[in-house]
Amino acid sequence: MSNNLHNELRKEFQLERLILFSDAVFAIAITLLVIEIKIPEVHENVSDRTLLIELKHLLPKFAGFIISFMLIGLYWSIHHRMFGFVTNFDNTLLRLNLFFLFFIALMPFSTGFYGEYASSDLFEKHLKVPMTFYVLNFCCLGIINYLIWLRICNPKYKLADPPVDKQIAAFAKARSMLVPLIFLLMLPVAYLADVLYAVYVPLLIPLILKIAKRKSFKKK
Amino acid sequence: MSNNLHNELRKEFQLERLILFSDAVFAIAITLLVIEIKIPEVHENVSDRTLLIELKHLLPKFAGFIISFMLIGLYWSIHHRMFGFVTNFDNTLLRLNLFFLFFIALMPFSTGFYGEYASSDLFEKHLKVPMTFYVLNFCCLGIINYLIWLRICNPKYKLADPPVDKQIAAFAKARSMLVPLIFLLMLPVAYLADVLYAVYVPLLIPLILKIAKRKSFKKK
Amino acid sequence: MSNNLHNELRKEFQLERLILFSDAVFAIAITLLVIEIKIPEVHENVSDRTLLIELKHLLPKFAGFIISFMLIGLYWSIHHRMFGFVTNFDNTLLRLNLFFLFFIALMPFSTGFYGEYASSDLFEKHLKVPMTFYVLNFCCLGIINYLIWLRICNPKYKLADPPVDKQIAAFAKARSMLVPLIFLLMLPVAYLADVLYAVYVPLLIPLILKIAKRKSFKKK
Amino acid sequence: MSNNLHNELRKEFQLERLILFSDAVFAIAITLLVIEIKIPEVHENVSDRTLLIELKHLLPKFAGFIISFMLIGLYWSIHHRMFGFVTNFDNTLLRLNLFFLFFIALMPFSTGFYGEYASSDLFEKHLKVPMTFYVLNFCCLGIINYLIWLRICNPKYKLADPPVDKQIAAFAKARSMLVPLIFLLMLPVAYLADVLYAVYVPLLIPLILKIAKRKSFKKK
Repeated sequence: MSNNLHNELRKEFQLERLILFSDAVFAIAITLLVIEIKIPEVHENVSDRTLLIELKHLLPKFAGFIISFMLIGLYWSIHHRMFGFVTNFDNTLLRLNLFFLFFIALMPFSTGFYGEYASSDLFEKHLKVPMTFYVLNFCCLGIINYLIWLRICNPKYKLADPPVDKQIAAFAKARSMLVPLIFLLMLPVAYLADVLYAVYVPLLIPLILKIAKRKSFKKK
Repeated sequence: MSNNLHNELRKEFQLERLILFSDAVFAIAITLLVIEIKIPEVHENVSDRTLLIELKHLLPKFAGFIISFMLIGLYWSIHHRMFGFVTNFDNTLLRLNLFFLFFIALMPFSTGFYGEYASSDLFEKHLKVPMTFYVLNFCCLGIINYLIWLRICNPKYKLADPPVDKQIAAFAKARSMLVPLIFLLMLPVAYLADVLYAVYVPLLIPLILKIAKRKSFKKK
Repeated sequence: MSNNLHNELRKEFQLERLILFSDAVFAIAITLLVIEIKIPEVHENVSDRTLLIELKHLLPKFAGFIISFMLIGLYWSIHHRMFGFVTNFDNTLLRLNLFFLFFIALMPFSTGFYGEYASSDLFEKHLKVPMTFYVLNFCCLGIINYLIWLRICNPKYKLADPPVDKQIAAFAKARSMLVPLIFLLMLPVAYLADVLYAVYVPLLIPLILKIAKRKSFKKK
Repeated sequence: MSNNLHNELRKEFQLERLILFSDAVFAIAITLLVIEIKIPEVHENVSDRTLLIELKHLLPKFAGFIISFMLIGLYWSIHHRMFGFVTNFDNTLLRLNLFFLFFIALMPFSTGFYGEYASSDLFEKHLKVPMTFYVLNFCCLGIINYLIWLRICNPKYKLADPPVDKQIAAFAKARSMLVPLIFLLMLPVAYLADVLYAVYVPLLIPLILKIAKRKSFKKK
């Protein structure tokens, strides 16, 4: 029995290790975002005015930085809550988590790419490629997040003890699909209507989430 | 009851995770600072003398690096002490902490920007924009720090158990506001008087803190 | 006896620290991979088409990124499992682990170097040096991994308690040697036949592992 | 008493946090080393031969990378052992540790600077500045390490419980001073004799440590 307890503790420490490893990747990705913002280099006629203009040019990059920071932060807190249920792990969960981290690690690139070509003077050209890349990165995150929820909530795999409450599971799964779906909506809007409209699509998220929450809990 | 203990432990581990995630962001930001210091590249006529001159040019950058290192270190130890009281968390604390980390992650950029244009030959131009940026970054840190203290010390939210001692709370809140206020003072000095005087304003901090400490504990 | 328990706990915490330090290096290396992928910079005639072409040029880099991500992830999970057996450590294990981490930290460079010269137009030149570098980095990882297994599984050093099961040990050791050996096979294929064939050699790994697994457990 | 236990646990967790924060800085610094090694970029006439030549040019950088990796690894294991004794902390220890981490974070710069100008063709010029910088960085590490040992071993501050054994303390303090002193010896050799001789001075370390160890434990 002491051996059992030992195994139990070891398993718990390994799960903890998995979680802390994920946290480290989150922390590094979120901090690396800022690396993509290059310090403005003015070599001739440096003045407060030229620096302000340079900073103004960096505004879309800062906007991208803030948005991605918040999104990684959001996914971290989702990961945080999700693994709050987990008491066990298997190889599939390990691999799904690794894929999830892959797309987290890709975020600084996507954000930098989007920010680079969303600067004020380029915006007029209505470039669609950087936004598509960004949206797809984000959708992949959402889909893998959904797959992890599926795995954790399935009592067959015994990953959560006690098992996740069914209503919570349903809402979590619905939400994890809704968010990337709304993001995907940005693409038809961008390609069929205009890139500039697409930017406002994510504003639907809080609205739809509220409706989903009410519906999901009304059945009770 | 065993279930209760389990929930308790899980809650505790999640709080721990929040703290360790923050620590990782601190650690990365503090180490990334040095990345902004580019290794001097002399391609022709390399000699000990040219390298010394190059190092001398880097001096203001090193100064900025040391100051920011100490400031991030200071805020880490404040965060350390602050979360020493915390035994519970809610979504607002999570979000406030994320905003706090955002401005920590921004520090390498602010420091690099300030250091880039504070180099000896440019200092003569009395540039105010980089210092303003740096000061504002620091003030935002201070304000969010204040908001986190407010939240933790308010017994209504039950984030600290036992609740934070009132005197300690008052002093912590006062100090977390005083420091960014003194930093803000640099701006009128820089804009109305001279940038070079503004650099000495932070030297007031230890003095004023001492007075504040004496006053705060005299009431006892 | 309370002192004994204290020592026991301290030893355990130090082992934990060793493991978490390793995890941090893994996490940083895996996230730094993406840093080597530079954001495409098009300064004239930016359009969706030119950006797509730029992204297409980055494809081999992305491929390298994904492969290295998976390989570091794989080695992390091997490290994870390996240290799941460890209950004690000595200086040799500490040093072996450090060498292991050295080659993990080298991965972003190797991957970047390989990816840089595996781009579509350069591939025609059948460059062998970047692949050799990559393969050697990977082999060193495998060899040190083998040495760590040797150390842990040897009951003389008392690093694992209870000692690692003999069959598990035999399989783990065999596998940790097989994988780098198959990778090494890439070199004669590349030098004697063609670089393009060498790329497919790693596909043998799952096949051979399956055979090895069956053989290793058949003896039972 | 339950409150006491709670305080005890909180204190322990805060100490753990201090240690894990340090570990993160170590891990980042050790992994960032490799970032300073730029991937060779050959744009015209790429061939295996030109790439080999480029790699050969990088050899001194690799050498520097390996040495610094081992040195940071060594200091990490010293930190590891040192804080294995610590059961409590005060503000001074926190600050000393922060200064220690400062010089750890500076290592990628020092190593990169040294490696940049130690390349084969520049070595003929017998540059002394990069080596001096590197040696001084290392000496500062040694001195702060010594100060931390002084603090921990002094029973007055109650940082270690049970207090550090006097003989272990004496040896640790002696060694932490010996290593930077031998490194400092490189400077007179470099300035008075020749830089090329200075490189071999660190080889004295294992020899002198062995003598010191024998002497220190003979008194017993």
